[in-house]
Amino acid sequence: MSAPPRFRLGLIQMRCATDAEANLRTATAGIREAAARGARLVCLPELFRTRYFCQAEDAAAFDLAEPVPGPTTDALGRLARELAIVVVGSVFERRAAGVHHNTAVVLDADGALRGLYRKMHIPDDPLYYEKYYFTPGDTGFPAFDTAVGRVAALVCWDQWYPEGARLAALAGANVLLYPTAIGWHPSEKAEHGETQLAAWQTVQRAHAIANGVYVAAVNRVGHEGAADGGLEFWGASFVCDPFGVVLAEASRAAEEVVVVDCDLARQEDVRRSWPFLRDRRIDAYGGITKRLLDDG
Amino acid sequence: MSAPPRFRLGLIQMRCATDAEANLRTATAGIREAAARGARLVCLPELFRTRYFCQAEDAAAFDLAEPVPGPTTDALGRLARELAIVVVGSVFERRAAGVHHNTAVVLDADGALRGLYRKMHIPDDPLYYEKYYFTPGDTGFPAFDTAVGRVAALVCWDQWYPEGARLAALAGANVLLYPTAIGWHPSEKAEHGETQLAAWQTVQRAHAIANGVYVAAVNRVGHEGAADGGLEFWGASFVCDPFGVVLAEASRAAEEVVVVDCDLARQEDVRRSWPFLRDRRIDAYGGITKRLLDDG
Repeated sequence: MSAPPRFRLGLIQMRCATDAEANLRTATAGIREAAARGARLVCLPELFRTRYFCQAEDAAAFDLAEPVPGPTTDALGRLARELAIVVVGSVFERRAAGVHHNTAVVLDADGALRGLYRKMHIPDDPLYYEKYYFTPGDTGFPAFDTAVGRVAALVCWDQWYPEGARLAALAGANVLLYPTAIGWHPSEKAEHGETQLAAWQTVQRAHAIANGVYVAAVNRVGHEGAADGGLEFWGASFVCDPFGVVLAEASRAAEEVVVVDCDLARQEDVRRSWPFLRDRRIDAYGGITKRLLDDG
Repeated sequence: MSAPPRFRLGLIQMRCATDAEANLRTATAGIREAAARGARLVCLPELFRTRYFCQAEDAAAFDLAEPVPGPTTDALGRLARELAIVVVGSVFERRAAGVHHNTAVVLDADGALRGLYRKMHIPDDPLYYEKYYFTPGDTGFPAFDTAVGRVAALVCWDQWYPEGARLAALAGANVLLYPTAIGWHPSEKAEHGETQLAAWQTVQRAHAIANGVYVAAVNRVGHEGAADGGLEFWGASFVCDPFGVVLAEASRAAEEVVVVDCDLARQEDVRRSWPFLRDRRIDAYGGITKRLLDDG
């Protein structure tokens, strides 16, 4: 089966409860709604089965992890097959005792686990203590062939790295999907909130532009954590086209299913008019693999 | 002399006439105005001494080229020394018979030619026939120590490449300056003009965000070329801070001198709060030096 040149993409922006089963029900309902509205590729938020547990370093939270394949990929795979759609999910993966990953999974329209991406860039900032939980991924930045064509899934903090987007695009991805859990520190929101959200959207739109690919970010909503602190996840899930034009953007506080058409004819047109990939200076990029170029 | 942690940056958005001497006078007046308004680093547009001759492939246009060092760097160096400022200019460089470059030059506050950057990414699109004129640069993406600290100059089409911005930032640049000549095809402006300008600004703001550096683009204004075609250079020269916040943006049609304060304390603050450089996966970026990753 050859991939369609045009398909509908669905984003499930959701609130995440403490009950993993309830979160799976919410995700399932969202996926069913997206499929009913014509989506053939649907993406969930990062770690959608749990609260964002990385707000604290707590060894007991490793109990939330599960293997891949495992219960979540089984459930999403069944749903993908039933609906004949591609589902991109996110799993707190237990790979071995003491080796856990923040993993994106691609369930193809036949229900098979088509691909797995282990978050490569791991943040560590106040209330985002991910380096405690997640071993940095060893997958690189692959693209996977699915019923809707070649797609890549990256995760949250990866959003800030042009290298990840570039490598996924060079691997042939037409769509970059970013399951995400990003929010405001409530105490910072008034002063910095708009700037932070603008930077987050801008850097991802730039991945679309620089690479001529569709980009979608799928975030959770709602406040989690201490009543006088915690994190307010900012939603604002969005899709932009291969020239960075925002096609749809969800609200900042409500659960929402967003569906948008992706058309590879648009990608072809953009890449013909703005042929950035043609002129890359691959002979001169070696320094990208250095930490800094400070050795004179 | 240690570089100041805070300095004022000036952008000279100008119209370019057919007379090279007139263009130097316009540039000089702009630089003097910027300096009088406190600028200690001033940047000119790409190829400011001429009309944008790349609208046609004409062997006679090579007569417009000059050596580096040469008349333009001499004139800008004298001005830089007199005003005790750093000037970033742009030269159509004749390096040898048959080897020409689109070159950015950095004149330090003592008048010395501190650095030279030869445009690495060369476009070739209708009315931007640069591959005919410019040999791709062999400088890489260096940063130069100047009286205002470490800066990098890149040129126009480079704006669309995250790799160039990243490498200049890794080399220690705090400010990326992009002398530019970009405009609309008049026939496309109504339909695509806003989207094109938005993409151009977005991708550069993303360089600032991803790298925690100031970014400035300096463009020309005015229509050049055939009355029923040609190019309408869109101005819109701008500066953004290390989190992508646009600090100033010039008009789209008028000559304008823009001055903006750059503060390395802001850079320090942004890089502490959003430590992207900390988490780069330099072990996994080797594929960046490939054309595509399509060999399975």
